[in-house]
Amino acid sequence: MRISAKSIKKSMIFLSLIILLASVSTTADQTHHFKPTKYYYTYDAKHEPVLKLKPGDTLVTTTVDAFGNKISSSDQLASKVIHLPNVNDQTGPFFVEGAEPGDTLVLHLLKVKPNRDYAVSTHLPGFGALTGETYTAMLNESLPEKTYIWKLNLEKNVGTLDLPNSKIGKVEIPLHPFLGTVGVAPNFGEAVISLTPAEHGGNMDCVETKEGTTLYFPVFVEGGLFMLGDGHAAQGDGEICGTGLECPLEVTLKVDLIKGKSINWPRFEDEEHIMVAGSTRPVIDAFRSAHVELIRWLVEDYEFDRWEALQLVSQVGVTRIGNVVDPKYTVVAKFPKKYLFVH
Amino acid sequence: MRISAKSIKKSMIFLSLIILLASVSTTADQTHHFKPTKYYYTYDAKHEPVLKLKPGDTLVTTTVDAFGNKISSSDQLASKVIHLPNVNDQTGPFFVEGAEPGDTLVLHLLKVKPNRDYAVSTHLPGFGALTGETYTAMLNESLPEKTYIWKLNLEKNVGTLDLPNSKIGKVEIPLHPFLGTVGVAPNFGEAVISLTPAEHGGNMDCVETKEGTTLYFPVFVEGGLFMLGDGHAAQGDGEICGTGLECPLEVTLKVDLIKGKSINWPRFEDEEHIMVAGSTRPVIDAFRSAHVELIRWLVEDYEFDRWEALQLVSQVGVTRIGNVVDPKYTVVAKFPKKYLFVH
Amino acid sequence: MRISAKSIKKSMIFLSLIILLASVSTTADQTHHFKPTKYYYTYDAKHEPVLKLKPGDTLVTTTVDAFGNKISSSDQLASKVIHLPNVNDQTGPFFVEGAEPGDTLVLHLLKVKPNRDYAVSTHLPGFGALTGETYTAMLNESLPEKTYIWKLNLEKNVGTLDLPNSKIGKVEIPLHPFLGTVGVAPNFGEAVISLTPAEHGGNMDCVETKEGTTLYFPVFVEGGLFMLGDGHAAQGDGEICGTGLECPLEVTLKVDLIKGKSINWPRFEDEEHIMVAGSTRPVIDAFRSAHVELIRWLVEDYEFDRWEALQLVSQVGVTRIGNVVDPKYTVVAKFPKKYLFVH
Amino acid sequence: MRISAKSIKKSMIFLSLIILLASVSTTADQTHHFKPTKYYYTYDAKHEPVLKLKPGDTLVTTTVDAFGNKISSSDQLASKVIHLPNVNDQTGPFFVEGAEPGDTLVLHLLKVKPNRDYAVSTHLPGFGALTGETYTAMLNESLPEKTYIWKLNLEKNVGTLDLPNSKIGKVEIPLHPFLGTVGVAPNFGEAVISLTPAEHGGNMDCVETKEGTTLYFPVFVEGGLFMLGDGHAAQGDGEICGTGLECPLEVTLKVDLIKGKSINWPRFEDEEHIMVAGSTRPVIDAFRSAHVELIRWLVEDYEFDRWEALQLVSQVGVTRIGNVVDPKYTVVAKFPKKYLFVH
Repeated sequence: MRISAKSIKKSMIFLSLIILLASVSTTADQTHHFKPTKYYYTYDAKHEPVLKLKPGDTLVTTTVDAFGNKISSSDQLASKVIHLPNVNDQTGPFFVEGAEPGDTLVLHLLKVKPNRDYAVSTHLPGFGALTGETYTAMLNESLPEKTYIWKLNLEKNVGTLDLPNSKIGKVEIPLHPFLGTVGVAPNFGEAVISLTPAEHGGNMDCVETKEGTTLYFPVFVEGGLFMLGDGHAAQGDGEICGTGLECPLEVTLKVDLIKGKSINWPRFEDEEHIMVAGSTRPVIDAFRSAHVELIRWLVEDYEFDRWEALQLVSQVGVTRIGNVVDPKYTVVAKFPKKYLFVH
Repeated sequence: MRISAKSIKKSMIFLSLIILLASVSTTADQTHHFKPTKYYYTYDAKHEPVLKLKPGDTLVTTTVDAFGNKISSSDQLASKVIHLPNVNDQTGPFFVEGAEPGDTLVLHLLKVKPNRDYAVSTHLPGFGALTGETYTAMLNESLPEKTYIWKLNLEKNVGTLDLPNSKIGKVEIPLHPFLGTVGVAPNFGEAVISLTPAEHGGNMDCVETKEGTTLYFPVFVEGGLFMLGDGHAAQGDGEICGTGLECPLEVTLKVDLIKGKSINWPRFEDEEHIMVAGSTRPVIDAFRSAHVELIRWLVEDYEFDRWEALQLVSQVGVTRIGNVVDPKYTVVAKFPKKYLFVH
Repeated sequence: MRISAKSIKKSMIFLSLIILLASVSTTADQTHHFKPTKYYYTYDAKHEPVLKLKPGDTLVTTTVDAFGNKISSSDQLASKVIHLPNVNDQTGPFFVEGAEPGDTLVLHLLKVKPNRDYAVSTHLPGFGALTGETYTAMLNESLPEKTYIWKLNLEKNVGTLDLPNSKIGKVEIPLHPFLGTVGVAPNFGEAVISLTPAEHGGNMDCVETKEGTTLYFPVFVEGGLFMLGDGHAAQGDGEICGTGLECPLEVTLKVDLIKGKSINWPRFEDEEHIMVAGSTRPVIDAFRSAHVELIRWLVEDYEFDRWEALQLVSQVGVTRIGNVVDPKYTVVAKFPKKYLFVH
Repeated sequence: MRISAKSIKKSMIFLSLIILLASVSTTADQTHHFKPTKYYYTYDAKHEPVLKLKPGDTLVTTTVDAFGNKISSSDQLASKVIHLPNVNDQTGPFFVEGAEPGDTLVLHLLKVKPNRDYAVSTHLPGFGALTGETYTAMLNESLPEKTYIWKLNLEKNVGTLDLPNSKIGKVEIPLHPFLGTVGVAPNFGEAVISLTPAEHGGNMDCVETKEGTTLYFPVFVEGGLFMLGDGHAAQGDGEICGTGLECPLEVTLKVDLIKGKSINWPRFEDEEHIMVAGSTRPVIDAFRSAHVELIRWLVEDYEFDRWEALQLVSQVGVTRIGNVVDPKYTVVAKFPKKYLFVH
C-alpha cells in the first residue's frame, strides 16, 4: 500500500481508519514475525537487512534493553559489563520495498510492551545532564556509579523501586513504555552510533515514540532500513541520569510509505498532536530545528500562513525535552491537532 | 503569621488547609486593595515600596499588560508604540514586614484573571526564538512585524483569533491566565529590567505562575519588595514569537514568610507538583540550575538520599520550558508530589 | 575637548596625534590625581561620582586587586577571606562633563602598571570554565580550593611561580598588565555586579584593555560614570580557573568624548586592530554579538559594503576569548587596521 | 620506524631532529608520489585505501578545493554547482602499516602550498556563523549568495580581492595556507561527512594545520586511514561566512606512528606550542574538551601536577577558534612549549 503525497494530510488525520482499511484492503498485506539473533550498535546503510517488508505489512518483533540484557542485579556496574558505546543494541535493519530517498517512511506503533519483570537504570561515570561528560568536559571527579533495579508489574502497569537511603523508602510509578531509539539509515553515507539522535531519528529518548503513535522518518537510502531498540518502561523528561527504566520490549508495528514526500526531521502523530523531533546540540538549536520544521509542516500540509502559524504555535505549542545527555539532545515540538482544521 | 523553617515541609503539603486556617486564625490578617498609579520597568531595591504588607495579609490588585495597555488594534505596531525595554510594566513593589535576607517569601496566588475582552500578541523585529536577536546576533533581515488581537471571552474562558491568510480561518483556544513576570528585588545591589528572569524571579514567562499555585522566592533585601505584571491569558511553551496573549489582570494573593529558610531559585507548588524555575542562558544551564535545585530540595526537605533523588527525578521528573527569548531563558523542573511521602 | 561624530574615523586612526594635540590644544585640559578611599561592587548610575572630569582631562589613579588586596599568602583561601560577589572592587565612578546618552566615551589607556611585587590567583569552589558553576550547575564535588602567589619582577616585567608538585618546579612568564574590569553605568536603570560583563563593559577580562589601547564605551547615563579595577598582571585566554594574576594597578588615562555617536558594545583600538567586545552567554552568542557589531562598524565608519565586509572579516578577522567563566562570557572580534584604508 | 610511547615526550620536542634522523636512519623509508583520481565525501573505515605507507615514509600528493575545483568565476553560485554535503572532497584514505586502535598516528606537514593562482570563497544560503543555519534554524530569509574570487600571487605569498562596492576598493592579504580538513577513520564504526570535525579530526578549519606543524591523531581502525583536503590559502578565526580562501594544494608529509599511545582528540605541535583541537557544539564544550585534554597531556607526558597545570594554563594558555559553522565547531587550546621543561 502506497500513500501519495497528496493524500498525506487526510491520511494523518484518519489514521485509525487507514490502518483498519489497510488491514482489509488487500490480501497482500502480511504479518511478519521476526526474532532477532544479532543486534547493531550503528545506524548504517551498509548493514545487511534482516527482513524485507512491503508497505502495509505488519512486523512483530522484540528488542533487548540498552545493556544487551546483561544486567539483572544492582551489584552489577554497567562500566564493568558493557563497553561504551556498544550499547543500545538495535533490532533490524528492516528493508521497506519501494522506499527511495525523498520518500517518507511511516511506522504505526501498534504495540510497545515490556516483556520482562524488571527494568534497569544506571548512573554511569561521566554520563548524564548534571555531571561532566565527554563533551561537557570537566576536571571534577565523576559521580558515584550506581545500578538500580526497578520491579515491573506488567499487569498493573507499574514499576517499583526500593529507596533504602531515603525517608520514603520505596516508590511505585505508572509505566508508559516507549522506544528510546528508532530510526532509519542516515543520509549522505554517514554511519551513526545508536546512542546519537539526528535527522534519521535514532536515540531520541522521547516519551512520544510509544504505542499508538505514528512515526514518520525521511528515507535517505533505498529501503529506508529502519531499526529499533532501547525500550524504556518509563522515563522523566531529559533523562537526566542518562538512562530510563531500561527493558526489553515486544513491538508490533505497521509499515507504510508516502512516496515523494520529503521531510527534514522525524515527525510523530498521535490522537492529540502532530510533532517534530529535532536533535542536535545545544538545546536551543534542537528546539529551533523542531519548531521551524513544525511551522513548515503547518504551512505545507495544512495551508497555514507562515506568520499566522508562528503566532499560533507561540500560543498553543507544547514542547517536550527528550534527552539532554551526550552526544546530542532531542526536543519535541508538538501542535494540537484540534487547531488543524475547521470544525 | 510567620512559618518557621522547620514547619515548611508540612506547610507546603497542606497549603489549602494553611490558607484556610490563616484566614481565620487572627484578626490581624488584613486584605489590602491596591490600585496602581505608576509602574516600574526594573526590579530594584531602591524603588520606594507602594504598600506594606504583613505575613498573612491578602493583596487585591491589578496589572497592566506588557505594552502598558497601549495597543488595542492590529494596525498598531509595537515598535512605534513602545520603547524597548520599557515594557513589562510592573505593579509594586510591595514590602513584606519581617522579611530579611535569607528568608523565603511566599505568595499564594488566589486569583489571576484577565479583566479585558482582548489580548495582544506581537511579532517584534529582532525578538523571538526563531529569529536573530540582540544576543543571538545575525546579519539577516528581521521577520515582518505583526500585531495580533485575540478576542477573549472571559465567561467561556476562551480566546479567538482570526487567521485570514490560513485555510482554517479562525481558532478558539482555552485560556490559562498566569503572571508572566513576578519576583522580588534582586541580590547584591543589582537592578534588573523586568524583561529578564533570574534568581529573583522576574520575567520567567512560565505557565505555572497561575491561580492556585504557591510561589516561593528568596528574600534578598529587607521587605523582599515583590512586584508582578505581564499577564498572559494563554501562551505556548517557549513563547517562541516573544509574546503571549498579553492582557491586564485582576490578582489576589496571600503573603506568607518562611523565616530562616534560604533558597537559590524561585520555587512553585500546586496540587500536583513541586517545581523550581531556573533562568539563565543557554537552555541547558537553565535546565541544570533548576534540576540541581530540585534535587537539593528533595534532599533537604524530604530526606531523600542524593543519588536516589537523582534516580527518581530521572524517571518521573517533568520539564517545562518557560521562554527561550532574549535576554535569558527559563526552564521549570517539576516533581510529582505523590512521590514525596509514604502513603 | 569634544570630538564630533563626523570626525570619529580620522580621530580613531590618528590617535597618537590627537592625544599629542589634545595635551597642548587648550590650557583647560587638566590632570587629576585621584586616590580612592572606597570601592564599589556594582556598576550603578545611582553611585555618587567621586570626581568630575572634562573631555581632554587626564586621570591618574589606582585600583586594588579583585580580592580587595586581602590575600597575600597561599595559606589564605579566598572563600574564607572574601564574600562573593563582593569582589572586583572598582575605583570610581568618574563623571565626564557633557557625556549624555547616545554619546561615546573614550578612554585612552596611557599607563596600566602593577604596583605590587606579587599577584594572586585562586581556584575557587564552583568557579571556573572546567568545573560546575552556579549556572552550569552540576552534582559533582567541587575542585580543591587553591591560592597561588606569583612573584612579580616589575623591572624585568616577569612573574614567577613555584610549582613544587610538577617536574618543571617553577616558571617565569612575561607580564602583560591590563584592566580586567572597566566600563560605564549600565543602560535602562540596571545595576550590575562588577563580576559581570555586558554592553556597558564591566568584567570583560580581555587582554586588550591594556596600556596603549583606546577604549570606546556607549554612554547610557549623564556623565557616563566610568569605573575600573580587577588588574591582571597576566592571564591566559578564557581565564579558565576564574582568576588571572590579580594585582593592584597604577592607571593613567585620558578622557575624550564623541558626541552623537552611538555604539552597541565596547570597542577598542590599538596600533594593529579595531576591536569589539561582545559579552553574553553562550560563547557563540558573544561571538555573534561582537562580529555583527564589527561589521556594522566597518560599514558605518569605513564605508564597506555589508557583504564585502562579511567576506573580508571571514578571511582576516582575529578572535580572542576573554573569559568563559560565570556569570557571562566575553569574546573580542578584531579587524586589522591595515585593511581599513587605501594605502 | 616506530616510536614507543615512552619516547614520545622527547620525540615531540626534538621533532626536527627526529625528522632529520628518520630521513637517514633507514633505507626503508620511502617517498610515495600519489596523484588522486577520485575523492571521498565521508571519513569511513569502509573506504578502500588508495595507498599503503610505512611509518617513516613520506607522501607527496595533492588535494582539490572544497568545491571540487568546479568554481572559477564570481558568476558561478555554489548552490548551483555543488550539491551539499558533497563538498570537501578528500584525498585518500592512506593506510599506515602497523597502526592499530589505541596507537597515535603522526603526520609531519612538510609542505602545504596552493597550486593555483586563485582561491574561491562563497556566501552560501543558510550557512555561516552570522545567519540561520540547518541547526541554528531560523525563519529569516537567507543572506544573499555570493562568490568571491581571490587572486593568489604564490611568489609573493599574497592574495588580492576586489571590493568594488567598498571605499577601499581592493585588499591584499598575506597567505598562510593550511589543510582545512585532515583526519583518520572515525571510531565505533561511524562514518562522518567531510564537513564535520570530531575526535577523528576532519573539518577542523583551524589555521594551525599548516606547513611545519606535526599532527597527532588517535588511531581507531587498523591502518588509521587518514585523508586530507579542503585547502585554505588564508582564513580568519571562526570562518564566519563558512568558507576560507578555498584552493587546491600540494602536500608533502611524513608519516610516523606512536605505538600504544592513546589520545582522545587531535593534537598538534609546532615550534611554539603544543595544541589540542576539540570539536563539538556548543563552543564552550569544544573549548572544555580541548582544555581538559591539554591538561591531561601536561599531566601524563610532562609530569605536571593536575592543579598546577590548571593554574598555568589559566595564565599562559592561548585559544584559537577554528570554525563556528555547521555542523560542529572547533576550538584549539595551545600551551607554549617554553613552559614544558626546565631551561
